Amino acid sequence: PDYNCEELAQQRLDNLTKPPGSLGVLEDIARRLAGMQGTPLPRLPQEKVSLVLAGDHGVVAEGVSAFPQEVTPQMVLNFLRGGAAINVLARRAGARVVVADIGVAGPVIAHEGLVNCRVKAGTDNFVHGPAMSRQEAVTALETGITLLKQQVKQRPALVGIGEMGIGNTTASTAVLAAFSGLPAEQITGRGTGIDETRRQHKAAVVERALKVNRPDARDGLDVLAKVGGLEIAGMAGIILGCAAEKIPVVLDGFISCAAALVARSLAPLSAAYMLASHRSQEPGHAIMLEMLGLKPMLQMAMRLGEGTGAALAFPIIEAAICIINEMATFAEAGVSQGE
Amino acid sequence: PDYNCEELAQQRLDNLTKPPGSLGVLEDIARRLAGMQGTPLPRLPQEKVSLVLAGDHGVVAEGVSAFPQEVTPQMVLNFLRGGAAINVLARRAGARVVVADIGVAGPVIAHEGLVNCRVKAGTDNFVHGPAMSRQEAVTALETGITLLKQQVKQRPALVGIGEMGIGNTTASTAVLAAFSGLPAEQITGRGTGIDETRRQHKAAVVERALKVNRPDARDGLDVLAKVGGLEIAGMAGIILGCAAEKIPVVLDGFISCAAALVARSLAPLSAAYMLASHRSQEPGHAIMLEMLGLKPMLQMAMRLGEGTGAALAFPIIEAAICIINEMATFAEAGVSQGE
Repeated sequence: PDYNCEELAQQRLDNLTKPPGSLGVLEDIARRLAGMQGTPLPRLPQEKVSLVLAGDHGVVAEGVSAFPQEVTPQMVLNFLRGGAAINVLARRAGARVVVADIGVAGPVIAHEGLVNCRVKAGTDNFVHGPAMSRQEAVTALETGITLLKQQVKQRPALVGIGEMGIGNTTASTAVLAAFSGLPAEQITGRGTGIDETRRQHKAAVVERALKVNRPDARDGLDVLAKVGGLEIAGMAGIILGCAAEKIPVVLDGFISCAAALVARSLAPLSAAYMLASHRSQEPGHAIMLEMLGLKPMLQMAMRLGEGTGAALAFPIIEAAICIINEMATFAEAGVSQGE
Repeated sequence: PDYNCEELAQQRLDNLTKPPGSLGVLEDIARRLAGMQGTPLPRLPQEKVSLVLAGDHGVVAEGVSAFPQEVTPQMVLNFLRGGAAINVLARRAGARVVVADIGVAGPVIAHEGLVNCRVKAGTDNFVHGPAMSRQEAVTALETGITLLKQQVKQRPALVGIGEMGIGNTTASTAVLAAFSGLPAEQITGRGTGIDETRRQHKAAVVERALKVNRPDARDGLDVLAKVGGLEIAGMAGIILGCAAEKIPVVLDGFISCAAALVARSLAPLSAAYMLASHRSQEPGHAIMLEMLGLKPMLQMAMRLGEGTGAALAFPIIEAAICIINEMATFAEAGVSQGE
């Protein structure tokens, strides 16, 4: 980001008719977008896109989810027909939804609206060995970068990321455990809604995966390949692509933040282009946001994924842009400043 | 509210293609709006209005604010010219801003866009006696009810409330102290940005006001008249009017929630029409939201007032309405349900 533009944006924010800093995170967003767009007055996005990646997880064989794996392709078709929550929220926010199969298990999904970029038909069960090879992880990352470049052409742009994949809170928990060193028991949540007995089983599965694979926390690619997922890799690639293209990327919940941890591990400066949208119900999500140094805007006890939290944050980000552009200064409005 | 419609809305929400409850507060909003509108499928508002009331506070003579009292009428003119934060956020949300002088000190403000309904030219300094008479408090409440009825004609409607008044975090702190019994020191914050020394002085002023006036926590009108404010009374009236008209009313920050406590004290059922927007930086605000039993959507460290948090929540409330109307059910989408 252009820190000179951030500085100029901050000066303007401090002269607008409000006590300095009183718009909180709205001011942070306006300042950071100035830096990302490289202009003291950030402009409204010309293009808003929700990129939704679908991938399956071999670890579902361990019984970690309340939903069967067949739901992944079923929901992909629901996205393509416009009936899912992400479709409704993106439409409302004026954003386009792009759905990509980067790693769904089972037969190829036939639908003209789908981006078919499947790297592998679901990951392998990581309690027995790595989820994927290092080469597959690299390919999935590159797939995400390519997807971003192909789908987002206009500037300024605003990108939200989301996912679908039965079992992916288990993989994300393993990624967080690997990077943070925290015990699985402490950071394992209820995902789509499992009971306490199953949650404890899920935590034990994550612990086993870490023992078997021994991912190296200093090597993001190692963590990704051993205990990650294909949609997590793809989202990490999108984040890297956004940083390269200087596009703000809005994170969603727990799984997208696992991707953000991978992206930051591979390219620390990519964090400068991340915006947090919401804090989800998943207990590890707050820890991830803390690790990433990001402040979420929304706290609505959501736990759906798909990019729903990110899409819900689009209007707030646009409001922040309008604030810095449209508010009057103290001098313009003839209002006395404070002490 | 119509609890039968709430029940029908909940049944539909549970059949939409997502794990039950996974959209969190978004689902709560959709269900509650169904009850308020009296239909299982709530409709988007035909009219959105931000009602902003301005009033002054005699207690500023004690040096409790970082800004001089002249800022109240200056900001009223800024609202009327469209240069304040509430103008920007309401415009972005497609809402109309209505500005009313219910109790500004000094000469009458001449502007054709202003609703002049001044009850009194600022409250009296409540460290020496009541802020206003019981009759003045009733008149200010009635003024709020009338304002709501005159300004909001279409249905369904969505109303946000906001305020401007130098010194009004001091009055709101006194209102919270009176209703909660909590010590002023614990619930007094920095308002528009005073330092720690001044914050302690402000807490002492609130304690003194309570000792001098002895407001009766069981009598909302007594609390309002003795340690409230004219804009607080007007907002409480708007809330009562919204409940009578079955219109959802979106609360803003600390001062609007002081008004909500007064409204609930006078008419407990009015709480059923309140929606919380954000949790502000002011430490007492979280306590008020807890007392009101409301869950805020946004946590953005805002502390501006004017109705800015409420306006920022309008698109989220509309998104909740779209969710229940537009998402596919499991049966429609051919998606397998969980266990």
